[in-house]
Amino acid sequence: MTQPRFDVLCIGNAIVDVIADATDEFLEEQGLDKGSMRLIDAEEAERLYGLMNPGREVSGGSAGNTAAGIAALGCKTGYIGQVSTDQLGDIYRHDIEAAGVEFLAEPRDDVGATARCLILVTPDAQRTMNTFLGAANQLKLGAIDESVIADAGIVYLEGYLWDLPEAKEAMEKAMDAARAAGRQTSFTLSDAFCIGRHRNDFLRLIDEGKIDILFANEAEIQALSGEDDFDDAVAAVCSKVPTLVVTRSEKGAIAVEGGARARVAAVKIDALVDTTGAGDLFAAGFLAGKAKGLELDQCLKLGAIAAAEVIQHYGARPEQDLKALSARVY
Amino acid sequence: MTQPRFDVLCIGNAIVDVIADATDEFLEEQGLDKGSMRLIDAEEAERLYGLMNPGREVSGGSAGNTAAGIAALGCKTGYIGQVSTDQLGDIYRHDIEAAGVEFLAEPRDDVGATARCLILVTPDAQRTMNTFLGAANQLKLGAIDESVIADAGIVYLEGYLWDLPEAKEAMEKAMDAARAAGRQTSFTLSDAFCIGRHRNDFLRLIDEGKIDILFANEAEIQALSGEDDFDDAVAAVCSKVPTLVVTRSEKGAIAVEGGARARVAAVKIDALVDTTGAGDLFAAGFLAGKAKGLELDQCLKLGAIAAAEVIQHYGARPEQDLKALSARVY
Repeated sequence: MTQPRFDVLCIGNAIVDVIADATDEFLEEQGLDKGSMRLIDAEEAERLYGLMNPGREVSGGSAGNTAAGIAALGCKTGYIGQVSTDQLGDIYRHDIEAAGVEFLAEPRDDVGATARCLILVTPDAQRTMNTFLGAANQLKLGAIDESVIADAGIVYLEGYLWDLPEAKEAMEKAMDAARAAGRQTSFTLSDAFCIGRHRNDFLRLIDEGKIDILFANEAEIQALSGEDDFDDAVAAVCSKVPTLVVTRSEKGAIAVEGGARARVAAVKIDALVDTTGAGDLFAAGFLAGKAKGLELDQCLKLGAIAAAEVIQHYGARPEQDLKALSARVY
Repeated sequence: MTQPRFDVLCIGNAIVDVIADATDEFLEEQGLDKGSMRLIDAEEAERLYGLMNPGREVSGGSAGNTAAGIAALGCKTGYIGQVSTDQLGDIYRHDIEAAGVEFLAEPRDDVGATARCLILVTPDAQRTMNTFLGAANQLKLGAIDESVIADAGIVYLEGYLWDLPEAKEAMEKAMDAARAAGRQTSFTLSDAFCIGRHRNDFLRLIDEGKIDILFANEAEIQALSGEDDFDDAVAAVCSKVPTLVVTRSEKGAIAVEGGARARVAAVKIDALVDTTGAGDLFAAGFLAGKAKGLELDQCLKLGAIAAAEVIQHYGARPEQDLKALSARVY
């Protein structure tokens, strides 16, 4: 097979994060589930924003964060996500390109405002996300060029894409195009609440063998499998996908690939600031390892290093030199 | 005199900061003077942004940062600065209001884009600022309501306002209105390059007795006075203003008020991250102290505490609880 144009091509909701500190009491008053992501409309976005503390704006979006991390680790990376031609769209495009990622979806002026996610960070560094999808909602079949998909070693999709009524079909087409070209597909379950909304779709994708590398955290693998016990949940899913990766916060992560199992401890950190992006960057490290042909346990190590970097500052994209931090892995 | 509506009313350029890491080599390639602020047009803003690393967007503007700090210290604070009705303008308004500041200038849809400042932070934590003034340039006489000015104990203006050709007159009117109402005026020299552009204006304001509290750093007091020696520079200026405050980075700060002199050491910090806002927050602490009727040395202490907080994170507005940090001063 020819060398692909991209090591990894990521597809997701292109979202600018608006990050503010919040108290636990504020989350309670607003009836928000700590640690989760919910979708909100423009009106609710304006209402909640009006109550929030001063914010920091940084580009985010789960797969966008992953793309930035993969590029930071030296891989050829592309990204597809819909933004508007507005100021937040300009910021999004700038940031992902400046991170070394090729931005493959043209901004449009007919898609409403660029998506934003109001992220409330509580003193325990947990993030509670409120997403106004806006332009991201308009990611259409036309934005997915099958020849581009076929020219990526791995295509990576976020479960959140299934929240876009018109994008599901495009996403499955992308997965089919990748597999038809002999490439790999990878998928993150995104969020336990997202699984609540789309469990049957996700189970079907798995059963139909459309996912080669599946990412989940503990809550997600339990929600998907319906098993409360972690080992039971892993056992229920791992036989259905070639590679399963499950992150466990401070307990590290595991991977099951064929008959092989690997495990990594969490990387020790100085100060936990904001957990936003931990899962996204774990996936980035793991996929960069895969793209480089590393062994399973080395892929996990890269994931753990990338995740540890991102939770030590606000924002969900790497700020330190990931390549330098991960030098001991290569 | 009746209790004023505002303890301090700040007037300045309303600017959203776009903060990115940069190398010393990048500054050299771009011919930028480290630590300074330069004005750029829309075209240069686009060109430079295209070369910058991924950014973080946070509300800034010198006097806006000061206003946020004063409010964080529990004072009634107002702010006047012109933004557009665009997304960055919404962010600016939200952030300053969420900081507890009353935002007194209506956003307008006929003023171009909201101002932004491309801030390059080098590994030594110095910031080099490239400001596209945009809408801020449109701050007009009409935005300055003299009855509001007269209802503030202290009005605070930034020297950067003198970069707005049409605003100078409005600013002097604001100063006159404050003094006519028996209130105090305060002024920051902003930047040595800004003094280069407006030295004669600034000297005239001082000579005409329009400034009660003057803020400067070492480079600025030297540029204003034309004296290379620090003590000579202070001596040349201090007799012309009722209160002179000069910040000296890690050497602390001094104040001269009438015959009295006071001095404060810099507050010890754990890690210097980004010096943006150090002077703005020093002014905030000092003015909050004045508004509370504290002694000169206590005002300096509040300034030092507020400045120390802001240089330990990216962004030029307080993130920690300044009131709690300064509890030992009151």
